[in-house]
Amino acid sequence: MAAPAPSALPLKAVVFDAYGTLFDVHSVASLAEQLWPGRGDALSQAWRAKQLEYSWLRAMSGRYKPFWDITRDALRHSTARLGLPLDPARETRLMNQYSSLSAFPENLDALRALRAAGLPLGILTNGNRDMIDVSVRSAGMDGLFDHVLSSQQVETFKTLPAIYELAPAAFGCRARQILFVSSNAWDAIAARWFGYTSFWINRAGAPPEQLDTEPDHVGALLGDVVAVATRRA
Amino acid sequence: MAAPAPSALPLKAVVFDAYGTLFDVHSVASLAEQLWPGRGDALSQAWRAKQLEYSWLRAMSGRYKPFWDITRDALRHSTARLGLPLDPARETRLMNQYSSLSAFPENLDALRALRAAGLPLGILTNGNRDMIDVSVRSAGMDGLFDHVLSSQQVETFKTLPAIYELAPAAFGCRARQILFVSSNAWDAIAARWFGYTSFWINRAGAPPEQLDTEPDHVGALLGDVVAVATRRA
Repeated sequence: MAAPAPSALPLKAVVFDAYGTLFDVHSVASLAEQLWPGRGDALSQAWRAKQLEYSWLRAMSGRYKPFWDITRDALRHSTARLGLPLDPARETRLMNQYSSLSAFPENLDALRALRAAGLPLGILTNGNRDMIDVSVRSAGMDGLFDHVLSSQQVETFKTLPAIYELAPAAFGCRARQILFVSSNAWDAIAARWFGYTSFWINRAGAPPEQLDTEPDHVGALLGDVVAVATRRA
Repeated sequence: MAAPAPSALPLKAVVFDAYGTLFDVHSVASLAEQLWPGRGDALSQAWRAKQLEYSWLRAMSGRYKPFWDITRDALRHSTARLGLPLDPARETRLMNQYSSLSAFPENLDALRALRAAGLPLGILTNGNRDMIDVSVRSAGMDGLFDHVLSSQQVETFKTLPAIYELAPAAFGCRARQILFVSSNAWDAIAARWFGYTSFWINRAGAPPEQLDTEPDHVGALLGDVVAVATRRA
């Protein structure tokens, strides 16, 4: 008898990206707007873009450095480029904001519904493990995740295969049997390239990326993951 | 007798990035401004950022696609994100602009001075070979370059080592003996990470990148390369 087609494999786990997916980075923009009225959005966008750029350049060139430090480097460059004076007090406030992100309010119910359906859960993040642990605890998500997987374990960043390999190894199944959930379209697409079943949380109604591959599923909220995951469990 | 320190090795060649370094991409922004008054800068910045992002994601995930096609993909995404209607005629005009970039006026004299000093010259570019050949010819740079090296030869993009390996292989010397010149700070830094002696052409007076490494040399014009290169030849 032939093996079932990969798309028909039952899901064995649901794995989440952290920043922007489980945890809301909007509070960073709010503080930036307080510090530099009228420039908060520009800074938070430039900061995020530079943070990702540095992670990609370091991944490609084999120059790993923890994400927390990259985040600070990106803040310093972005403020300099935008001509915003960054003194140590402002830097500390902005970085602290990043270390205590709150979860999207709907997320806890969605995660509990997935657990109730018997699905093991995990996090796969570029972020430092200790940063994620703090956010998980403060969001009341203790005990919900079987595995919290961080770039620190492999010293590289998404989208290199080495970091995507962590979840199939941890859950002991094929990538296709894991639903990988990210609010970053590029992450959801690269995860599918790697082999995952992927879900893009498109909270902002962004246009699709032009990368010749779509995420397997798209929704606007983490709650939308529950229907897909429990149907496939 | 001990071998000379790497920094004291005489230069054997000077190798240039193409877009923004030899060829001016400003004409693209001008046309974008004509097509969507008040939005030309926003589009050209978003387009360029997305073009690089797609090249990095594809390099990391082993999903090579020629740079010309990536450039079109990035244009389509960027216009959609900015809400700018892109019909086929506008797309063709913008892409054609990219295929016939003009050189910075000062460049031809600088390249000739380097040749006169006996230094072999090359181009190392993410771009398609045929796009570069057209721009080289229309800039009157025929015959100045010993090697035009393109991402197409290795089917990946900067900053993966495979593309930076092309120039030492072509010129038959160590990377440290090649002066690699780029107007993209990230490219000049990653080239130094790889092993080149690197020169950042900082035309716009941008703040330095926060990557724990500086290019070996910084100047504002291609002419500034001549003094460094001839001193080290």
